[in-house]
This record gives sequence, C-alpha cells and structure tokens, in this order.
Amino acid sequence: MLKALFIDLSGVLYEGNKVISGAIAAIKKAKESQLQLRFVTNTSRKTRTQLLNELNNLGFELQQQELFTAPVAVHAWLQEQKLRPYCLIHHDIKSEFADLLQTEPNAVVIGDAEQDFCYDKLNRAFQLCQQGAPLVGIGYNRYFKIDGQLLLDAGPFIKALEFAASTQAIIIGKPSKDFFLQVLASTGLRADQVLMIGDDIYGDIEGAINAGLSGGLVRTGKYQPGDEHKISAPHLTFDSIVEAVDYALLDL
Amino acid sequence: MLKALFIDLSGVLYEGNKVISGAIAAIKKAKESQLQLRFVTNTSRKTRTQLLNELNNLGFELQQQELFTAPVAVHAWLQEQKLRPYCLIHHDIKSEFADLLQTEPNAVVIGDAEQDFCYDKLNRAFQLCQQGAPLVGIGYNRYFKIDGQLLLDAGPFIKALEFAASTQAIIIGKPSKDFFLQVLASTGLRADQVLMIGDDIYGDIEGAINAGLSGGLVRTGKYQPGDEHKISAPHLTFDSIVEAVDYALLDL
Repeated sequence: MLKALFIDLSGVLYEGNKVISGAIAAIKKAKESQLQLRFVTNTSRKTRTQLLNELNNLGFELQQQELFTAPVAVHAWLQEQKLRPYCLIHHDIKSEFADLLQTEPNAVVIGDAEQDFCYDKLNRAFQLCQQGAPLVGIGYNRYFKIDGQLLLDAGPFIKALEFAASTQAIIIGKPSKDFFLQVLASTGLRADQVLMIGDDIYGDIEGAINAGLSGGLVRTGKYQPGDEHKISAPHLTFDSIVEAVDYALLDL
Repeated sequence: MLKALFIDLSGVLYEGNKVISGAIAAIKKAKESQLQLRFVTNTSRKTRTQLLNELNNLGFELQQQELFTAPVAVHAWLQEQKLRPYCLIHHDIKSEFADLLQTEPNAVVIGDAEQDFCYDKLNRAFQLCQQGAPLVGIGYNRYFKIDGQLLLDAGPFIKALEFAASTQAIIIGKPSKDFFLQVLASTGLRADQVLMIGDDIYGDIEGAINAGLSGGLVRTGKYQPGDEHKISAPHLTFDSIVEAVDYALLDL
C-alpha cells in the first residue's frame, strides 16, 4: 500500500514555465489525501528559495520541508566534510555556495554549469581530481529538456572527469541511494511504501528502484519513446502526473 | 623474439618541441638493426604531413609509410562509410577532413578539439548521437601533457557523449584493436613479434596487449608514478625509449 509519493519537478509538474496539463489539480488532490508528498529534484539552475517561489507562482503550494534539492544536499555535505570546493555550477546557484571558502580548492563540484563547461575550466577540475580532490556530482543526470531541445546535464561531464582522472564521483542527489534514503527518512516510512514519479528513466526511476522504492515513469518532459525499455527493473509508466496520482489514490 | 617496435610519438620521442634525451640515437640504432619500426600516434593536433616535417626537423628520419595516425584512419573510415561528419577536432587538422561533405551531418567525430570543447558544440554532437548518428573517436586517450600540465584529451569527451546518448563510440586509433592490427598488417608479422612502446598506460600499453602485442611503458612524457600498477596485464617498463630500444636489440 502506497503511503507517499516522491515527485520530480521539471518535466513532471512543468516544462519550462508551462504547467503540465492537470498537474496543479493532481497535486492538490494528492495533498488532500493521506499520502505524504516529497518533491525531489536535481535542478541545479535555481536556488531552493527561487524554486519554491516559482512553484508557488505557478499554482503549486509547496512547503520548504517538502522540497529536497541536490544542491542543498551537496552544500551540507561539503560543510560537514570541511572541504573547499572548485564549483562548476550554474551561475544562478552560485549564491547557494557563497558562504563556503573556495580558495585553494580541495574538492570539485560539478552541477549543470551550462556555458561554464568549457575546456579551460574542465581542465582545472580534472587537474584537481588528478591531485586527489574528491569529485562531487550534483546528481548524475544525462540530459534535460529546454524549449523542445535535449541538452547535456551534469552527468556526462562527471563521467568525463571520472574517466580522465580514473576516479569515482560521489553523487549527491538522484540517482544516489543515500539521497533517496535521506528523503525517505523525512517521511518515517519504509521504502516499499513510496512511489517515485519522474520523467528520467535513469535518475528518477532506476535510482528509486535501487533504493527500494517503486518507480513510475511519466511520458512528459524529457521522456522519449522507448525510454521504458532502457532499464530491466519492473516499473510503472503513466501518461502524466495526473494518471500517476490517480493510480496512487486508487492504491490507498 | 622481437621483430618490430611500434613507437608512440609525443612523450616517447619528444615532449613539446624538446627531444627526449638519447631518443634520436636510439631510433637510428633501431633502424640500423633488423627491427621493423612503426610510429603509431593518436595525435590529432597535426596533419600527417606536418608531423613528418616536424619529426624530420627534430632529427628523426621517418618515412610516410612508417607513420600511422588516428586522424588519417578516421578519414579513411568515414570515406568508406560515405558519412558526413560533424567534427569536433583541432583547428590544425581540419584541413585533413576538408574534402568530406560536412553539411547535414550524420556522424560525429571527436578528436582533441581543445577550445572547441564548449557547451554548445558538445550539445550539437550529443543531439546528433541522440538521433542515431554514429559517434567516432579519434583515439580514446584520457589526457596528454603540454608544458608540464596534464590536459584533457578526446577520451573523456567521447565518454561523456557515450553516457549522454546511451551509445558506444567507434574508436579509431589507439587503443582500438583494429587499429593495432591494421599497423601490424603493414609489417607482415605476428602480434607476438611486436613490442609497443608508449607513455600512455591505457592507450598504448593496455591497447597493445589487448591486440596480442607486448607493451613497454616508458617513464617519460605523460607518465605518472604508479601508472604501471593501473593495469593488471603483465608489461615491461623502461626509463625511456633509450632503454626500450636497448632491450629490443638484446632480444634479437
């Protein structure tokens, strides 16, 4: 029996600044049920505060404690480890890391850095990793979708650095099991009582399944026909968040 | 019994524009022996003609038929397959691909593109792969060394695109077995009669061993202490090309 839904944001609730048809009503309905909701995102182009404001402006009523973002988790981890990061991250979330000392870096953080993914900065990151700095990934997503175009996310650049420096990144955010378990801990539930809903067959669905949750792939956002066959683990597929919520409510 | 030496160029014969100490005399000595010599490089910053000129200017006397370069092999393959490449390659070798039609590309070629490795061009490459264009790597090297600095080579970017588009690259050049066998065919020898000498533990040594050759790692060029332990396959190590040639001559 389902007790909670973990829901990805971009591509599931909205695309760009357009709400997915029926998503607001679906989330409202889920909130009024006995289901616990958590919103779980690797989005590393917006601070948590910006995200909350935008979601509320779009018509979704989210509380801060329901929203788990990968950059916030990375920041907490760096602080705990007392590391000075060299950050290849999006300009718009640099403020979220501004309180950390970043001179003489001894860690590398890779997010969705967009135009900052250039040869010189990637070399700097590589050289630090080569010298033994841990490589930290804000998620491991392969790509995302903007204006109908698929664009490279942080994952491929993390992969590139792992290969170059013969190292393995510490992934914080989806699909990391630790990240899913951290969100799970906030619910007090068991993993098998939770369904993760997302449009990323690897980051959302495979990741959730590896952490013991169920996975439900929606055919919106970055979904491409055939994605459901890219992993062998059994999972659900839904036309959109609307159908996913209806399924969950029937399962109560 | 050794009958041929395959020799990598950069880091083995020279570093930047500085000849490795004793390398010219070592190559001369090898040429005067019964050994066949082949020079095998993934260098994708110079055309074959430029390379030959530079090597001859440095004092190495090489014939064109002794020199096997990855870009020339990639060009031949594209021509054979009648493909129109989108090339992320170094500016200085664009002339080597200029005779190929490159409009409406249906293949992606990744070399050591240096500053051309930027977010927009990598996205273009990714989107083409995502649409089914084959991904062709000019070698798969992880890094090279210039002015004492390790810099990212083509390999990590090929890895990034493979991961992003869930595809596998066709690697032409080292460490591809086909490439080693193509060079081998030019000698008329068996693989076990050949020693590959290089400074890249993966591209030169592991690659050669996988193709049935012996591998000898030199401690010059991009070599880093500990590299010899990065692969489990048995291989030789030498202080430099000088010691490697002496070893080969003793083995005649």
